[in-house]
Amino acid sequence: MPISDSLRELTKMKSCHVFYLIYTLSLLLGLICIIIVTTWSKVYRGGFAWDGSAKMFNWHPVCMVTGLVVLYGNAILVYRLPFTQSRSKLLVKLVHATLNLGAFSLAIIGLVAAFGFHNKMHIPNLYSIHSWVGFAAIILFGFQWLLGFLAFLLPCTPLWLRAAYKDLHAFFGLCILVMAIAASLSGINEKLIFVLNAPNSTSSYKNLPPEACLANVLGVILLCFSMTVAWMLLKRDWQRPNARESVLGDATEPLLTED
Amino acid sequence: MPISDSLRELTKMKSCHVFYLIYTLSLLLGLICIIIVTTWSKVYRGGFAWDGSAKMFNWHPVCMVTGLVVLYGNAILVYRLPFTQSRSKLLVKLVHATLNLGAFSLAIIGLVAAFGFHNKMHIPNLYSIHSWVGFAAIILFGFQWLLGFLAFLLPCTPLWLRAAYKDLHAFFGLCILVMAIAASLSGINEKLIFVLNAPNSTSSYKNLPPEACLANVLGVILLCFSMTVAWMLLKRDWQRPNARESVLGDATEPLLTED
Repeated sequence: MPISDSLRELTKMKSCHVFYLIYTLSLLLGLICIIIVTTWSKVYRGGFAWDGSAKMFNWHPVCMVTGLVVLYGNAILVYRLPFTQSRSKLLVKLVHATLNLGAFSLAIIGLVAAFGFHNKMHIPNLYSIHSWVGFAAIILFGFQWLLGFLAFLLPCTPLWLRAAYKDLHAFFGLCILVMAIAASLSGINEKLIFVLNAPNSTSSYKNLPPEACLANVLGVILLCFSMTVAWMLLKRDWQRPNARESVLGDATEPLLTED
Repeated sequence: MPISDSLRELTKMKSCHVFYLIYTLSLLLGLICIIIVTTWSKVYRGGFAWDGSAKMFNWHPVCMVTGLVVLYGNAILVYRLPFTQSRSKLLVKLVHATLNLGAFSLAIIGLVAAFGFHNKMHIPNLYSIHSWVGFAAIILFGFQWLLGFLAFLLPCTPLWLRAAYKDLHAFFGLCILVMAIAASLSGINEKLIFVLNAPNSTSSYKNLPPEACLANVLGVILLCFSMTVAWMLLKRDWQRPNARESVLGDATEPLLTED
């Protein structure tokens, strides 16, 4: 093997190791987010129920963080995993679509939990900017999944349409993550103000009691998680080799036809 | 001129027109954000002062939206403007650094406005997740500016260091925008809860009075603004021709040496 080829192989291996290092970090951060949001709901907010009470609302942050952020972040990363690059593209696309469907389902359960609590307590739905952005993220996610399915999984979709939609699909995929993070942070802020600044609360948000610290730290780790995901998505070296002509996408190539 | 060259020229012109269309849209959205945030502070929150009162705080959203979002968004877009691609790279870098310094200064004024109000009212600083993320964005912005200056404007910085730092600089540039948007949305939510759900308020956030609608719409337009900026930044066709080897950056090339 010529020296230049050996060097290229070595650089590729090193890049692959760095990827898995950041990927492990993102998995760890995602896991910590799920543990913290569950602890917050269980230990500080009284646990879970499905009866229209505040305990029903507690499913909302858990489902949103687990589905709309952590599972979603992992779903959009599937194409970047080095071992998937030698696998059938159809298989990788099916895994991508299935994980996203799981994330979407969790987001819908989270939405129903919030609406159920609001309706029972006669609180209007969708009035705060937190709810506007979160709801918009879920609507966009639904369209994104549907259009992605039609464009990249249906064999009859013409190639020019796939090519035209590819960059938009990848871009809005990242936008949904950003919107989910913005909704999460404003949601944490809102919830802490509502529960800690309520007349019957023994502490106040501004005194940073343990619950406030925990939920604030959740916000910071959610942000760090999304940054590791975005870095792996945008780093050009880690895109599928046949997708590097495009800045964001790797989903143009014929799908069912190539297998 | 061969037909293929003419076609390439035509595609390039069309792409340039699309860029300016989206750029005009982003300028318009940015302008609307500044008008709305100023109207909110002036009409609904009593206007401006610099005396530690709530009127001093009103500078906070105005400076943050104008500096940390709109001016910052325009500063990071400078390299994408087609007419700058034929100009001296040093000049473009100096414009980029100057606009960013302006954005950073406005962010500092916005920070001082919030701290001044808090201190006079004996409200602790930096306790909410809104303030944690906003403060982290400003700290990161400061480091980003300093490191950008050292790496890309000092002629003695070795090329390998520029190359190593380039992708990180561009990535964190985008992260700061995302953090600013997350901080803006949680800040809008927080402010509306504080002022509209206060005991002396005539309305409540959940009834969506005109002030709440206006501020929520501000949040939505801030999000749309950041999405147009991110699209222009990430779209590969619009990166500087000599920077397309990298997914995000266009700042590696020798600066003072090339002019």
